[in-house]
Amino acid sequence: MMGRKIIIVGGVAGGATAAARLRRLSEEDEIIVLEKGEYISYANCGLPYYIGGVITDRDALLVQTVEGMSKKFKLDIRNLSEAVEIDRELQTLTIKNLKTGTVYKESYDKLILSPGARPIIPNLEGYKEAANIFTLRSVPDTDQIKHWIDERKAQEAVIIGGGFIGLEMAENLMHRGIKVSLVELGNQVMSSLDYEMSAIVYQELLDQGVNVIMEDGVKAFRDQGSTVELQSGRLLSSDLTILSIGVRAENELAKTAGLSTGKRGGIIVNEHLQTDDKNIYAIGDAIEVKDYIQQTQTMVPLAWPANRQGRLVADHIHGKAVSYNGTLGTSVAKVFNLTVAATGNNEKLLDQLGIPFEAVHVHPSSNASYYPGGRPLSLKLLFDPNTGKIFGAQAVGVKGVEKRIDVIATAIKGNLTVEDLADLELSYAPPYSSAKDPVNMAGYVAANIVDKELSVVHYDEIDEIVAWGGVLLDVREPEERERGFIQGSINIPLGQLRERRHELPKNHPIYVTCQVGMRGYLAVKTLMNYGYQAVNLSGGYKTYEMVQRIKNKEAAPL
Amino acid sequence: MMGRKIIIVGGVAGGATAAARLRRLSEEDEIIVLEKGEYISYANCGLPYYIGGVITDRDALLVQTVEGMSKKFKLDIRNLSEAVEIDRELQTLTIKNLKTGTVYKESYDKLILSPGARPIIPNLEGYKEAANIFTLRSVPDTDQIKHWIDERKAQEAVIIGGGFIGLEMAENLMHRGIKVSLVELGNQVMSSLDYEMSAIVYQELLDQGVNVIMEDGVKAFRDQGSTVELQSGRLLSSDLTILSIGVRAENELAKTAGLSTGKRGGIIVNEHLQTDDKNIYAIGDAIEVKDYIQQTQTMVPLAWPANRQGRLVADHIHGKAVSYNGTLGTSVAKVFNLTVAATGNNEKLLDQLGIPFEAVHVHPSSNASYYPGGRPLSLKLLFDPNTGKIFGAQAVGVKGVEKRIDVIATAIKGNLTVEDLADLELSYAPPYSSAKDPVNMAGYVAANIVDKELSVVHYDEIDEIVAWGGVLLDVREPEERERGFIQGSINIPLGQLRERRHELPKNHPIYVTCQVGMRGYLAVKTLMNYGYQAVNLSGGYKTYEMVQRIKNKEAAPL
Ligand SMILES: Cc1cc2nc3c(=O)[nH]c(=O)nc-3n(C[C@H](O)[C@H](O)[C@H](O)COP(=O)(O)OP(=O)(O)OC[C@H]3O[C@@H](n4cnc5c(N)ncnc54)[C@H](O)[C@@H]3O)c2cc1C
Ligand SMILES: Cc1cc2nc3c(=O)[nH]c(=O)nc-3n(C[C@H](O)[C@H](O)[C@H](O)COP(=O)(O)OP(=O)(O)OC[C@H]3O[C@@H](n4cnc5c(N)ncnc54)[C@H](O)[C@@H]3O)c2cc1C
Ligand SMILES: CC(C)(COP(=O)(O)OP(=O)(O)OC[C@H]1O[C@@H](n2cnc3c(N)ncnc32)[C@H](O)[C@@H]1OP(=O)(O)O)[C@@H](O)C(=O)NCCC(=O)NCCS
Ligand SMILES: CC(C)(COP(=O)(O)OP(=O)(O)OC[C@H]1O[C@@H](n2cnc3c(N)ncnc32)[C@H](O)[C@@H]1OP(=O)(O)O)[C@@H](O)C(=O)NCCC(=O)NCCS
Repeated sequence: MMGRKIIIVGGVAGGATAAARLRRLSEEDEIIVLEKGEYISYANCGLPYYIGGVITDRDALLVQTVEGMSKKFKLDIRNLSEAVEIDRELQTLTIKNLKTGTVYKESYDKLILSPGARPIIPNLEGYKEAANIFTLRSVPDTDQIKHWIDERKAQEAVIIGGGFIGLEMAENLMHRGIKVSLVELGNQVMSSLDYEMSAIVYQELLDQGVNVIMEDGVKAFRDQGSTVELQSGRLLSSDLTILSIGVRAENELAKTAGLSTGKRGGIIVNEHLQTDDKNIYAIGDAIEVKDYIQQTQTMVPLAWPANRQGRLVADHIHGKAVSYNGTLGTSVAKVFNLTVAATGNNEKLLDQLGIPFEAVHVHPSSNASYYPGGRPLSLKLLFDPNTGKIFGAQAVGVKGVEKRIDVIATAIKGNLTVEDLADLELSYAPPYSSAKDPVNMAGYVAANIVDKELSVVHYDEIDEIVAWGGVLLDVREPEERERGFIQGSINIPLGQLRERRHELPKNHPIYVTCQVGMRGYLAVKTLMNYGYQAVNLSGGYKTYEMVQRIKNKEAAPL
Repeated sequence: MMGRKIIIVGGVAGGATAAARLRRLSEEDEIIVLEKGEYISYANCGLPYYIGGVITDRDALLVQTVEGMSKKFKLDIRNLSEAVEIDRELQTLTIKNLKTGTVYKESYDKLILSPGARPIIPNLEGYKEAANIFTLRSVPDTDQIKHWIDERKAQEAVIIGGGFIGLEMAENLMHRGIKVSLVELGNQVMSSLDYEMSAIVYQELLDQGVNVIMEDGVKAFRDQGSTVELQSGRLLSSDLTILSIGVRAENELAKTAGLSTGKRGGIIVNEHLQTDDKNIYAIGDAIEVKDYIQQTQTMVPLAWPANRQGRLVADHIHGKAVSYNGTLGTSVAKVFNLTVAATGNNEKLLDQLGIPFEAVHVHPSSNASYYPGGRPLSLKLLFDPNTGKIFGAQAVGVKGVEKRIDVIATAIKGNLTVEDLADLELSYAPPYSSAKDPVNMAGYVAANIVDKELSVVHYDEIDEIVAWGGVLLDVREPEERERGFIQGSINIPLGQLRERRHELPKNHPIYVTCQVGMRGYLAVKTLMNYGYQAVNLSGGYKTYEMVQRIKNKEAAPL
């Protein structure tokens, strides 16, 4: 094949990966990488940790340098060079050299857009007057924040937005001894999770001393930003404010070239990652993708998709029969001592799409309970109660959390059902897992539902059931109830259930709860076998209590 | 359904699980569990750690007690009761009460055999006279070993057999301050691994101060066992000898009842885990299973299969359409600081079965290299070079090891190919992984082979290639070569390859090596693009050196 001229806009995750693969597939192509910033190929994901002093070597963030990568892959990398306009007819790109101000054109045979996304900056009173409000996307952003902290000896910070960058920044600023207030407009942090799972994260934030302010937003920045006024009227003083309320696709170049963008603002591409124009590909944070499970439009600004898409685009340009089948949105974040991971659809999305689903919660130990160091982990699995198809999963805990999510993400790609999860042969020795891994366990519980061996209700339904006269049976031991129980429940410990079952009405459904759902399940099966109609509370008192704790805190005076 | 009478032989992993599930599925069946030992439902896998003092609470090993489990599941559990004969015609079982010596019969509708396996005890001179030789299978074995160590203040131990129980015992005895010699007849420890991967484990054993003696076996026990004489003539003094050379199925009951056993001694079952007699099921360590990948006969004495099969048998008895599709043999063990995990077929097995395969080795970091705490991990992936079908994988390292094996085990169950491994969307944040997870990376490398973008040779082929005049190019920097290189290799650092490529012959294949195989791959692609025939050394110098180190040690005087 004759050498072609390929231009890549954006020299970081998606762009650099595409460039490297393109060169591996051909020495002949002329490959130009345009990057408007100073740096290429840097570790965006490491930036919070460098600010926090966990990563100490700034150079470690720069995975490749302009010079090194140019030489290694024979690339024409132009940093501080912004692509400003595409002429699709002529197949030329107008480029502005940001060092010199010069504007020039380059022709292309193929154009790859990987311009990423930029932090959303709301239009708020006092924002312009404040010098202490930062967003975090790039190395220069990082340098600025770090410099500000060092220079001003910042003591108090306000973080706006409880997504993963907000939470990573909370941890890292605390790590530097800075007092952090975290302001979140929604009723939960970490939107990849459902409410009850996010409650565990919320609790950890409180335990770590973060001043978490939920369901409140910023109204204005006062006193050059040193006071943040919330919509509730509350005032927070701030040496440093981080705006982390999400990102928006860098779509201007595409839009002005007449390429379609979606209602979320992302560039629209086909399964080969081609835009409306077959010679222009787009990848990474800038595009809309299909949700892998539902095949609906979505945006997933994460590093894996960007890297993967960069590789695929290079392959497609070289005539390989590849396609991108959508993004699962597998994610993980460290939040102080917790690991928080998720894959696929959550309940909020399924509700929104009106898709019938069921969910199970299990709280097994990360490894064999008799071996030291095991830590509880909470795993939620969402699935189709008729077919067993897996929709998604969420896990929160201290150890072995992302392992379980990776396994489920793999199972989804293998088109496995919840029954198949029970059948996964995962590695077991006491320091690592149990003979039935937490994933197997979630699979068993879910499969029992599909198989009609078990019905469940959820933490957010049980109070109402009890209020309307439903019978709620707590099968824990009386001592356990001393540490808390669901109002209105009656107590028959599991060990006494067979003898005392006659105390329960036969013509009413019996709702059963225990600590994590396991004894409840045993009780449900016993009752069913004796002809009762019995229903388990998914995740038991533990899931119920996770949410209750927040509610109580929210009700408590500040 | 009318209540049936079901008898289970063996009350630990497989048996106890079957009993629990049977009860959940019906209150009416009469369920009798026979256990010849004192304890049921104990954590076999925890025993080495209790001896080592890592698990301190003996009761923690007893997952269920006879009394507790009888009550919880309404079971008739009879410990110290041995099943001694099956009358298949009459459907009765002869039982010996080991407390009283009484022998009696029980009829059954269904019989489940989960008698496990017992340690192999070779017929060696001096064995009978020695009181300090132990095997480890049960709680009483554990008590005996622990008692012996405590009473005799054991200082030196000999462990015979470098399988996973042998290695776990080595670690645990060292943990108690006992000097350990490990004697292994084969040329490697940990037979789940291939030779080069086991070399990493071998090195760790040496680093931890274990006196590892390879390719030598016991000839005799002298002086009541206080001297162990090896076949080489070498003498080891021993306060305590652990025999851990493998297990043999407990098959007598089945055999004398005329049920088929295989050439490995395991009870033969069909896909419903039924023996020749449809009313008699057999599960766990006592049976032969199909290798999941090749569907050949094998035995996999591990806890997951026993638990899984116990569940399935209960379901099958209750008319559910379930079947057991074979065992992958996913396993993991902690060996001092290392985690050693594997799934599916290894090279030794594939060779033995004459199945064409290819292997790749990658040595990525457990998490993003710029984030502290990442540790190298070595991952070997075996696959069909034509179809990309995954045969198996092995991983050794300090962190994140079993996670990768679990993902690959899941991929295998999902029928995914090596190309699909590259496409797995795994969770990424710097503390946990890289944007391309090690599993993705192994997938990419393997997929390149399937796709004919890359050919490889292996650590055990390269010396001969060089000896026969093959050109071996080392693309590392000269400084790196100072720490070791493959004899006969020439050096052109990757960065100079394009300019200096003319130094290489065009009419000969160029074999390329670097540190881990990655730069080698870049060099291979560059050379191929310039019309050279280039072949990468899989796993680079690192894989080569792992083996070399052992060889040198073995050659060195003792
Ligand atoms: C603080 C932080 C932490 C993160 N942590 C994680 C994590 O833990 N896990 C995870 O999966 N993801 C994480 N991400 C997200 C991940 O970094 C992105 O999804 C990924 O970098 C997207 O790749 P991309 O190529 O689309 O965009 P980018 O990597 O952002 O690259 C786009 C580049 O294009 C340049 N550019 C834009 N327009 C032009 C133009 N017109 N001309 C020239 N150049 C242009 C930009 O300057 C930019 O450098 C994190 C991101 C941030 C900011
Ligand atoms: C020290 C040790 C460490 C281990 N570590 C691991 C690990 O880390 N991971 C892993 O996956 N696996 C491990 N295993 C293996 C695992 O424990 C077994 O695979 C599993 O227990 C097999 O279950 P089973 O029901 O077949 O046999 P068992 O659990 O051994 O139960 C069989 C029971 O049957 C009884 N029995 C036998 N014959 C009769 C009879 N005629 N009448 C009445 N009772 C009878 C025996 O007394 C025994 O208690 C380990 C095993 C040992 C010994
Ligand atoms: C650094 C960067 C340019 C690398 O791109 P890359 O060369 O495609 O990717 P990697 O360095 O991970 O190497 C992967 C390649 O090496 C090959 N490889 C890796 N290990 C190998 C081994 N042991 N043997 C042979 N080949 C190997 C893979 O097959 C793959 O090549 P392929 O795509 O041709 O199949 C790009 O990923 C980047 O810029 N990253 C930083 C930015 C970023 O991702 N930010 C977000 C996350 S913080
Ligand atoms: C202890 C033992 C009897 C348990 O058997 P078991 O009851 O089948 O298994 P578990 O206790 O793991 O519980 C699993 C059951 O609880 C259910 N369950 C677990 N968590 C649940 C939850 N949160 N909500 C509802 N149900 C739950 C599962 O669905 C499963 O029931 P099912 O088989 O009817 O689907 C048996 O595993 C045993 O003897 N183990 C020790 C011996 C051993 O395995 N040794 C080798 C390893 S060291």
